[in-house]
Amino acid sequence: MKTLSDPERRDWLRLARAETIGPVAFRYLIETYGDAARAIGALPRLAERAGRAAPPRVPSPAETQRELDAGEALGARLLCSCEAAFPPQLAAIDPPPPVMWALGDAGLLHARSVAVVGARIASAAGQRFARALARDLGQGGYIVTSGLARGIDAAAHEGALESGTVAVLGGGVDDIYPPEHSELYRRIAEQGCVVSESPVGHRAQARDFPRRNRLISGLSLGVVVVEAELRSGSLITARLAAEQGREVFAVPGSPLDARAKGTNDLIRQGAALCEGAEDVLRALESVRGVSAPPPPSFVCDGEEPDAALLEQVAALLSPTPVSWDELARAAGAPRPRVYAALVELSLAGRAELLAGGMAVSA
Amino acid sequence: MKTLSDPERRDWLRLARAETIGPVAFRYLIETYGDAARAIGALPRLAERAGRAAPPRVPSPAETQRELDAGEALGARLLCSCEAAFPPQLAAIDPPPPVMWALGDAGLLHARSVAVVGARIASAAGQRFARALARDLGQGGYIVTSGLARGIDAAAHEGALESGTVAVLGGGVDDIYPPEHSELYRRIAEQGCVVSESPVGHRAQARDFPRRNRLISGLSLGVVVVEAELRSGSLITARLAAEQGREVFAVPGSPLDARAKGTNDLIRQGAALCEGAEDVLRALESVRGVSAPPPPSFVCDGEEPDAALLEQVAALLSPTPVSWDELARAAGAPRPRVYAALVELSLAGRAELLAGGMAVSA
Repeated sequence: MKTLSDPERRDWLRLARAETIGPVAFRYLIETYGDAARAIGALPRLAERAGRAAPPRVPSPAETQRELDAGEALGARLLCSCEAAFPPQLAAIDPPPPVMWALGDAGLLHARSVAVVGARIASAAGQRFARALARDLGQGGYIVTSGLARGIDAAAHEGALESGTVAVLGGGVDDIYPPEHSELYRRIAEQGCVVSESPVGHRAQARDFPRRNRLISGLSLGVVVVEAELRSGSLITARLAAEQGREVFAVPGSPLDARAKGTNDLIRQGAALCEGAEDVLRALESVRGVSAPPPPSFVCDGEEPDAALLEQVAALLSPTPVSWDELARAAGAPRPRVYAALVELSLAGRAELLAGGMAVSA
Repeated sequence: MKTLSDPERRDWLRLARAETIGPVAFRYLIETYGDAARAIGALPRLAERAGRAAPPRVPSPAETQRELDAGEALGARLLCSCEAAFPPQLAAIDPPPPVMWALGDAGLLHARSVAVVGARIASAAGQRFARALARDLGQGGYIVTSGLARGIDAAAHEGALESGTVAVLGGGVDDIYPPEHSELYRRIAEQGCVVSESPVGHRAQARDFPRRNRLISGLSLGVVVVEAELRSGSLITARLAAEQGREVFAVPGSPLDARAKGTNDLIRQGAALCEGAEDVLRALESVRGVSAPPPPSFVCDGEEPDAALLEQVAALLSPTPVSWDELARAAGAPRPRVYAALVELSLAGRAELLAGGMAVSA
């Protein structure tokens, strides 16, 4: 844990915002090159070696300073994953998001939190349940995290306004969506905390929501799903929570209600049945917060992959996720060399690096 | 498996209807004395030795013949637990009911069956669900067993009238309760089967229902509970089913609906979540019917307990259930002797013998 100087923070943000850089490559580059400035310096060469014609676009220092100034003007704060102010729960996920903007009381991000999420088109009963659940979790000492969406999310925030609530946005911290939640947004920014991985000023797009969901579960010790249809975003949040080692709770419902299909299915798959805050409080009582970041997952030995290995690894990739270690075995090459090849291919837009040490072709 | 002669059947029924004789003592006496007539002969002495002043009342042959005639007049058939016509599923429970009346198609009792039970004061949605579930289970090749009660039970019978349904009554096979189900009763007696452990002509009382519930689960490979409040009869049926090694299914519901409290609680305790017939059919696919009665649980060596042992065993009993074997260890006496003492104490009304080789003071 360190504190970054102003230029270091700016470079950290520049690297985070660089084209083709995802959180896995970000972490690899920081671990390999020691700091963001050196990683930015190495980028063009790495991408070119892997077959990319033009180097990936990296925002200029001035451009990045504009994002920093815009965030500051809002009263928001940039949290970098290497800093002590970064939420420890979130630093523990694989891979952690490199940066996050926080508007409001960022101290809430260090408290014990439960996510309450669910259907946007929720029943009145489901919203009532979510509101009461959030209020009771708040009384039980938990911050309630959700996604500011319509339906269950909004009800959860409302129920926990007094005790403390965190809204995770898909767009920038200043992107109020849906628009009818502007008053709720304002109250959360004042009394709670609004956070986002996206650049200030960014308008949420569909592709931002999986990342948003990953933040919701990553900030929390457990996720409660209240009403969800099959194949809905809330189930993705539940899956991410399980992958992150967080507790998953689901509120059961009648088989005649399509909005219970997803939650009943979660219970069938092993999620804890939740009929109220008591179930959550009891289950999380024994769960200690994650206080330390995970150990580095990369082994860097300074040697770089040659062109033949880069092409060999690229040829081994397919749309089916495969582990980095399996690729190393298949390529018959040392793991550090294959890891480096994967990152370079990702910088060149030829591989996509997934959580949990997996990769697919891009 | 044997076939009883008419006098043997009458004696079997006399012993089953004798005062203080429960199914555990019945089974013990048959195993010890070889047949019902000899057991009836031994009764007064056994009860007296255990401290009972007047011998337990045993119906006279004429009185028992009247029950047999009344059943026959209804068109019903008496099934004794030692006979091949007795449902094999039911013969496998511990202890099996000694006798059962069947009105209608007794062949259905040998087919694969699922019980569908639930709240008497059921929601319209719950009844609709139960009806559809029963119909779908019927189409899947299962007989649907229930208790002819208001609400879920009636809906389950209705849904399975075409495919085959068994109604288990607390009163005699001729005791139509509740009265508004007389038309449903008539149709089940014609198209399905109505069964009861109680004597013909007996009006159901509250204390008959636990025994009725035990029959419902005992006749079935699995029990589905559709809507149940906490501490309701349906949960007792579910518990009995689990004790009998049968599958338990529960239909989830909203935590805001009191009628889902019981079913959600069952799921929490490990019952399979049921959203429709598919869940039941899939789970039971691999379950083979129980085709043989369990081995005798008594070891009879012909020696009888002395007065001192009888009093010692009586003193060891309390309202907390304790196993027969634990009593034998505590008494420091051979197991056959202690088993005999327990049966004699039960005949004298001083002990109650429970399923699973347990006993309490009476």
